[in-house]
Amino acid sequence: MAERDTGMHRISHTRLAAFAARALEAAGLLPEDARAGAALIVEPDLNGADGHGIFRLPQYVRRIQAGGINTRPDIRIVREKAAMALVDGDNALGHLVVARAAEAAVEKAREHGVGWAGVRNGNHAGAASTYARIPLERGMIGLYLAVGSANHLPPWGGIDMLLSTNPLAVAVPAMDEPAIVLDMATTVAAYGKVKTALQRGEMMPEGWMIDREGKPLTDPKRANEGFLLPIGGYKGYGLALIIGLLAGTLNGAAMGRDVIDFNADDITPTNTGQVVLAISLEAFGEPDDFRRRVDDVIRTMRGSARMPGVDRIRLPGEMSHAKRRDRLENGVPIPAPLLASLDDLAGKLGIAGPA
Amino acid sequence: MAERDTGMHRISHTRLAAFAARALEAAGLLPEDARAGAALIVEPDLNGADGHGIFRLPQYVRRIQAGGINTRPDIRIVREKAAMALVDGDNALGHLVVARAAEAAVEKAREHGVGWAGVRNGNHAGAASTYARIPLERGMIGLYLAVGSANHLPPWGGIDMLLSTNPLAVAVPAMDEPAIVLDMATTVAAYGKVKTALQRGEMMPEGWMIDREGKPLTDPKRANEGFLLPIGGYKGYGLALIIGLLAGTLNGAAMGRDVIDFNADDITPTNTGQVVLAISLEAFGEPDDFRRRVDDVIRTMRGSARMPGVDRIRLPGEMSHAKRRDRLENGVPIPAPLLASLDDLAGKLGIAGPA
Repeated sequence: MAERDTGMHRISHTRLAAFAARALEAAGLLPEDARAGAALIVEPDLNGADGHGIFRLPQYVRRIQAGGINTRPDIRIVREKAAMALVDGDNALGHLVVARAAEAAVEKAREHGVGWAGVRNGNHAGAASTYARIPLERGMIGLYLAVGSANHLPPWGGIDMLLSTNPLAVAVPAMDEPAIVLDMATTVAAYGKVKTALQRGEMMPEGWMIDREGKPLTDPKRANEGFLLPIGGYKGYGLALIIGLLAGTLNGAAMGRDVIDFNADDITPTNTGQVVLAISLEAFGEPDDFRRRVDDVIRTMRGSARMPGVDRIRLPGEMSHAKRRDRLENGVPIPAPLLASLDDLAGKLGIAGPA
Repeated sequence: MAERDTGMHRISHTRLAAFAARALEAAGLLPEDARAGAALIVEPDLNGADGHGIFRLPQYVRRIQAGGINTRPDIRIVREKAAMALVDGDNALGHLVVARAAEAAVEKAREHGVGWAGVRNGNHAGAASTYARIPLERGMIGLYLAVGSANHLPPWGGIDMLLSTNPLAVAVPAMDEPAIVLDMATTVAAYGKVKTALQRGEMMPEGWMIDREGKPLTDPKRANEGFLLPIGGYKGYGLALIIGLLAGTLNGAAMGRDVIDFNADDITPTNTGQVVLAISLEAFGEPDDFRRRVDDVIRTMRGSARMPGVDRIRLPGEMSHAKRRDRLENGVPIPAPLLASLDDLAGKLGIAGPA
């Protein structure tokens, strides 16, 4: 959800999380699942992650009410070795499933140095960085790969949309500097950015999308006539494919033509796949030595001479970190149309609104 | 090394490997290390990997003779847990060090599902796909990340070259289809492609490089006035940074301004870092089920309707696979200037040439 300069309300992150929990519980989730899911849903609102957060709550509620999400799931590890786990999400709210996998990855990494936990039978789980941050909060390196929940990308040279924007996130702890947190789709623009351009009535720059002839497509109203472009051309196609194989196919989850478009279909189980990798710093040496070396890398990059017009060299996650500090203190900016949609949701569910 | 239509000799892969082994032994390596290193050096010649293979042999020999590579190394695991190993390469030929790490990763994955093996005190190790293929040959998924051996990339918005083209390779087994093998630099073009354009007297397309003002740079003769562009702009910068942290910083290997340019300096230990991840298919389910699902993904992608002018949808590694089959049968095409440089090397070392 894009921020706007006007009509913006600031609502505390705590209130947003409490509202999301009320909504999920009213929709049918158990109270504990509702609280845990809500916290993960509003996490991206703190970090300013584009295209994720509480604005997706009405869609999650709609899916739960339509029966597309199991409100009494048995989320469980179905295969396990010292360094890996395969979590079956039993079609639960995706956030709960991936959080369970992240905890399994962290446990394994703590004991064995590295832990890899895959997910099958999950659902859309929100911002990628949310799950790379779970190992990070335990002092570890976190990596997250996901099969996206709608296909917007053809294979390179093709025109059938057989791949999603399969994102990856990596979080690396530092010492005195903010952690490095990379969160990116494997396309030049995430589909949310196209939607934002459409909402704002703006044209898109060349390089975001092409049409079925391979020509640049810049009018977001024509988005359904074309495709997102992968980063680096065939390289981004390769990355999206590999992420899909690791996060989807390896786990027995959907990939390629099996991916259900969760925007268009509220009922069919999506069998969404994700994977979380946790790496223990202790396994490799003295953690503080590593953290100091990361600080040094950060300062080296930031200290680079700059191109004309560049005010600052940024590290991945730096802007999210600044937003997080602001929003924890001053609340999350909620545009008026979003607030209206949340109030509308509250009315339908018979619960108190967020503000 | 680019192929040319004229002046091409075909030399069997076996002869090339034997020649490389003679050269490495004459330069000072132990016979066993020379044989193992030679096999890894010429592996990319089979696969047609751009910018790697036997054409780098004179440089490796020069570095060994200058004392920049330890010819009596003690390559050893210095830290270890069930799921990880940290290999100290003792400044050996890089290929030997990464191969040792790949074997450690495979052993750990076989027992514990996943194995992660990092390298410090290594050296340039050739094509990334070589090491993702080691787990592949054992029926596993292989992933390889490396800190490149020269910095060609500034942080996004900067003009100081503080990052290398840090490559990644991933190899995923299939059933009846060739394995998927992605091998890519995190820049739009690898630096070897710039060198090739220079050799051919061709201009580069826009998008490969920019100058210090951020303007497109298309003349390869001006390459030293500019920088390679990362894929997807700041995304590729983020990927190069993260790969450097995982393959370099985490292992206590060089990263950022500590990276030695191995083209300009034959003596200073490079402390190159790499990492190999091996994933056992057995840990996740029935391996043949997975392989069949990968075949299905491959055929789905290949079966996509195509853009005008596209003759075939390719999967990563497909062209390498075709080259490998041809070259195993018909020999590796060696352009006349390369053959001359190898003959020259043979003369200097007092050994028989490759042809």
